[in-house]
Amino acid sequence: MSAASGFPSEVRIREVGPRDGFQNEPETIPTAQKVRLIEMLIAAGLRRIEVTSFVRADVVPQLADGAEVLAALERSEDVAFSVLIPNERGLDNALAQRERFDEISVFLSASETHNRKNVNRSVEESMVGLERVIERARVEDLRCEGVIATSFGCPYEGAVPVERVLGLAGRLAAAGCAELGFGDTTGMANPRQVGEFYAAARERLGGVEVTAHFHNTRGQGLANALAALGEGVDSFESSFGELGGCPVPPGSTGNISSEDLVSMLHEMGIETGIHLEGLLAASRGVQDLLDRPLGAHLLTAGPVDWQRG
Amino acid sequence: MSAASGFPSEVRIREVGPRDGFQNEPETIPTAQKVRLIEMLIAAGLRRIEVTSFVRADVVPQLADGAEVLAALERSEDVAFSVLIPNERGLDNALAQRERFDEISVFLSASETHNRKNVNRSVEESMVGLERVIERARVEDLRCEGVIATSFGCPYEGAVPVERVLGLAGRLAAAGCAELGFGDTTGMANPRQVGEFYAAARERLGGVEVTAHFHNTRGQGLANALAALGEGVDSFESSFGELGGCPVPPGSTGNISSEDLVSMLHEMGIETGIHLEGLLAASRGVQDLLDRPLGAHLLTAGPVDWQRG
Repeated sequence: MSAASGFPSEVRIREVGPRDGFQNEPETIPTAQKVRLIEMLIAAGLRRIEVTSFVRADVVPQLADGAEVLAALERSEDVAFSVLIPNERGLDNALAQRERFDEISVFLSASETHNRKNVNRSVEESMVGLERVIERARVEDLRCEGVIATSFGCPYEGAVPVERVLGLAGRLAAAGCAELGFGDTTGMANPRQVGEFYAAARERLGGVEVTAHFHNTRGQGLANALAALGEGVDSFESSFGELGGCPVPPGSTGNISSEDLVSMLHEMGIETGIHLEGLLAASRGVQDLLDRPLGAHLLTAGPVDWQRG
Repeated sequence: MSAASGFPSEVRIREVGPRDGFQNEPETIPTAQKVRLIEMLIAAGLRRIEVTSFVRADVVPQLADGAEVLAALERSEDVAFSVLIPNERGLDNALAQRERFDEISVFLSASETHNRKNVNRSVEESMVGLERVIERARVEDLRCEGVIATSFGCPYEGAVPVERVLGLAGRLAAAGCAELGFGDTTGMANPRQVGEFYAAARERLGGVEVTAHFHNTRGQGLANALAALGEGVDSFESSFGELGGCPVPPGSTGNISSEDLVSMLHEMGIETGIHLEGLLAASRGVQDLLDRPLGAHLLTAGPVDWQRG
């Protein structure tokens, strides 16, 4: 990798397991357990955590306790809590807890079919709705991340043009998003594509934070993260234990594992501010709770031997 | 990855599952099943296959049928069979089947402790023995690959100096190895290190084929492969299903998965000559035989959606 010198020296990681992960578990995790695990993540040095979402409880019962989770978590200046907001009604519900979080994430898919199957709207309908949400979030002084799913390919439509993704990103930025996340929702990205995509994104999206959100569906998650790092991307989303996925299509597997990502970054000399052993403790905690082996490799292998000291 | 233009357009893959994988299974796989699976790999377009090893049957009973496996396989000009040779006695036994294979692989570890635990010799003792094996292989017109284990770190000693690894590689090349493989035997490599290593190896080792052999112990296997690709490495070893590991230390998990590697390469537009669906058929075959879920992600996810046609 001749671009080695182009790697960032520090990376920010948003832990999305409490939302993206817990949402995809068939059994609802008890509120007290969610709070306990989030507190373990905070103790491990995670500084950005997607805590829950405000979606309809009949659609995502696993996260129906979002307000309770927020209410139970101690606030700290060092830690930014974000919540996923699907629409204005979700924002209304979240705002009842306005002092309990710092950021919202809004989302749409780059491809029509995936967007319709996920939220039953056209992409344009979603965009118009999100623009209203983002505008109201600005009034509330809430930082806003716009997430574009299927940015690297759609399981229903196939290839998604970069131009289309960056066009949507530009509109979200213009509406007021301070951060744009690009999701490889069903693990279709490859490293060459990722490198080219982020080179183009960097050129087009000045002034906003650009975040990478990969899934490890086909084992390429960290290779894709590496390709993004090579283009200077220094903001990632990942999930402890490799929890998570996507509601559609069924079987879409997990986000890249926070601990595997952190291990790779630390081994490469890239700082995250995260204590790997503490993160692993949280992952073992959720693995024990769910009582099944999770996908994160570090859960089995542990940190690289010389880190054991 | 600004080095994108430096990726090779074609990559050679040696399938090591029939040796490295089958050796690490607690139950010996019946000879007929081994032959059937190797034939499936050949049908899938694999052109380099490490078929077995000639080690002592009391040490590795799983491969005690090496001669029978070789005798049962049809020879083809297109497919190079290799066998792993630990010492001169192994070579003697293999030579009884001289016409049944094309290449030998010899190996030692870069670190003293791992070498001693693996073969009960010092590195220097191993080297002197291998030099004799390589010399005799040349007389027999057998192509020879020299494999250096723990090239990227030792689970007992920690960091292994690049200079030490490349020094051993130089001696193996001088002895007559046409190919040098560098093994991340216990999954300690990181992509930055890999990129720097192969940049140095390319500079030092002109005239021999340089091969990368990664393990996915910590989920970084394909990221490391990507880093090697970025330095122009175009020869890899991998294992169908993600079988394999290392006898020492216990619990050292599998090689990178051939199907996950091939999927990544094809998605990047890099040719392998391998039919992914055929390779997956072989992997499903070994998974059914072993009756447990294997680590390869493609076994669960299947090829990227647009490849399904």
